Amino acid sequence: MKLCYLDGEFLPFEKAVIPVSDHIIQRGIGVFDLVRTYGRRPMMMTYHLERLSRSASSLGIDEKLGLEAMKSLVRQGIDKMEGDGEVLVKFYITGGDRFVDGCRFPDPRYFVSFEDLVLPDRENYEKGVRLFPLDRARLLPSAKSIDYSAALAKNSVDPGALEVLYCPGGVISEAGHSTFFMVKDGKVITAPDDMVLAGTTRSLIIQILEENDIPLEMRAPSLDEVSSSQEAFISGSVKEIMPVVKIGTQTVGDGKPGPITAKIAELYRQNVPRWLE
Amino acid sequence: MKLCYLDGEFLPFEKAVIPVSDHIIQRGIGVFDLVRTYGRRPMMMTYHLERLSRSASSLGIDEKLGLEAMKSLVRQGIDKMEGDGEVLVKFYITGGDRFVDGCRFPDPRYFVSFEDLVLPDRENYEKGVRLFPLDRARLLPSAKSIDYSAALAKNSVDPGALEVLYCPGGVISEAGHSTFFMVKDGKVITAPDDMVLAGTTRSLIIQILEENDIPLEMRAPSLDEVSSSQEAFISGSVKEIMPVVKIGTQTVGDGKPGPITAKIAELYRQNVPRWLE
Repeated sequence: MKLCYLDGEFLPFEKAVIPVSDHIIQRGIGVFDLVRTYGRRPMMMTYHLERLSRSASSLGIDEKLGLEAMKSLVRQGIDKMEGDGEVLVKFYITGGDRFVDGCRFPDPRYFVSFEDLVLPDRENYEKGVRLFPLDRARLLPSAKSIDYSAALAKNSVDPGALEVLYCPGGVISEAGHSTFFMVKDGKVITAPDDMVLAGTTRSLIIQILEENDIPLEMRAPSLDEVSSSQEAFISGSVKEIMPVVKIGTQTVGDGKPGPITAKIAELYRQNVPRWLE
Repeated sequence: MKLCYLDGEFLPFEKAVIPVSDHIIQRGIGVFDLVRTYGRRPMMMTYHLERLSRSASSLGIDEKLGLEAMKSLVRQGIDKMEGDGEVLVKFYITGGDRFVDGCRFPDPRYFVSFEDLVLPDRENYEKGVRLFPLDRARLLPSAKSIDYSAALAKNSVDPGALEVLYCPGGVISEAGHSTFFMVKDGKVITAPDDMVLAGTTRSLIIQILEENDIPLEMRAPSLDEVSSSQEAFISGSVKEIMPVVKIGTQTVGDGKPGPITAKIAELYRQNVPRWLE
């Protein structure tokens, strides 16, 4: 089952259409955010929707609906989903039809899709995944824009890799769809806020590390450090914490998921109930 | 009047809609190209549509319509436009609904809009324009992707600037919607093919420079050279050749449009008839 909210009403996903005049189609002006449920309760919804609002603002989109109305839409949609399985919510705000020089998108469209949550293959967690390094950074790292053209175009080059890894000038910032973490000499290393999307799961992991006295270094690791690192992992709302065992042709540690990644993944799952709304 | 071709038929632009499931909406997977007319004849149509096809391919979109069918659509649309004014054609290819891991978009949608051509204000040519430098490069410089989020987001920072100027690491590659040229010590300087979109107007200017013995240097100039440059200009199908008099806070030459820019603009206009189809 797949449902969509658009322009004030809920309708089957297949019936939801947007005019070609909308700037999300004309010029890629659109932002989105994901919310997933655990036990049908949305996880960190407020955080996700606040980030969505900031993403909109950084693209010049006037978000007018407000946090409470957006939260209400998410709850309504989840309630309308049949069965008792988990739900994945994708909340989009588009640039709309009008562009005011100077420069705002004053009439955004809102659409929200609701679908059954599909989790990544278990094998990704058991064996770890490979990332494809790319000497580029996203243009607006703080915004969750819809532009995933570079993140998806990698597949024609290296379809075996799970995601791209943005490494502008050889320095690792973030993965195409995830936050990146390296484990080296007992420390967990991840890029600072100004280089990456402020990942929800990322912020929860940082909190867990602090609470459990696991040392954190907030800096962008370099690609040259991969060979001397012990572990690496990526994080995201849906994938949670997933081990990385290869970056391009370089092997991470002994090429197997490691104990610190496993420990953080376990702590993350234990803490989930704290963050449900 | 504004007309659209979509899914096999011509219809009023306002009636053309695309399902939210299309990857152009979901993940910014879409490419486009512009064709303008002179005397109702399309300018460099073959070049533009071949580039469109390459852009699609670099995003993993399977373009199946082919060049002749695309050309025929452009001609049909121009014929359907009322009056005898000039026409601006925007040809889009979307990622479509289906994504095949590995990774292709096998079912693209095609839509083409036809509208009355609106030229930039005369003042831009008479006084020259200002660009807003950005320490970034487009992620896929060779593709004309729909992603203009960075190019448009600049407006909230500096609405007075006409376009952004991509300057990764202080080196000037291209403008947000145009090719960039600097004139220094009697030479015209522009970034090489692998750093920028292969602009149609850019290639015609290069041809004109060669035919008229105006020296060309194919390298990316640095932002530090702006203060010692005599002139600068940007080029594009619609704007043709437009003088640039300021980049950020730096003034180009004496802050007025210069004679070499004017000469190239004049040569360009004289040569237009050669490139009509």
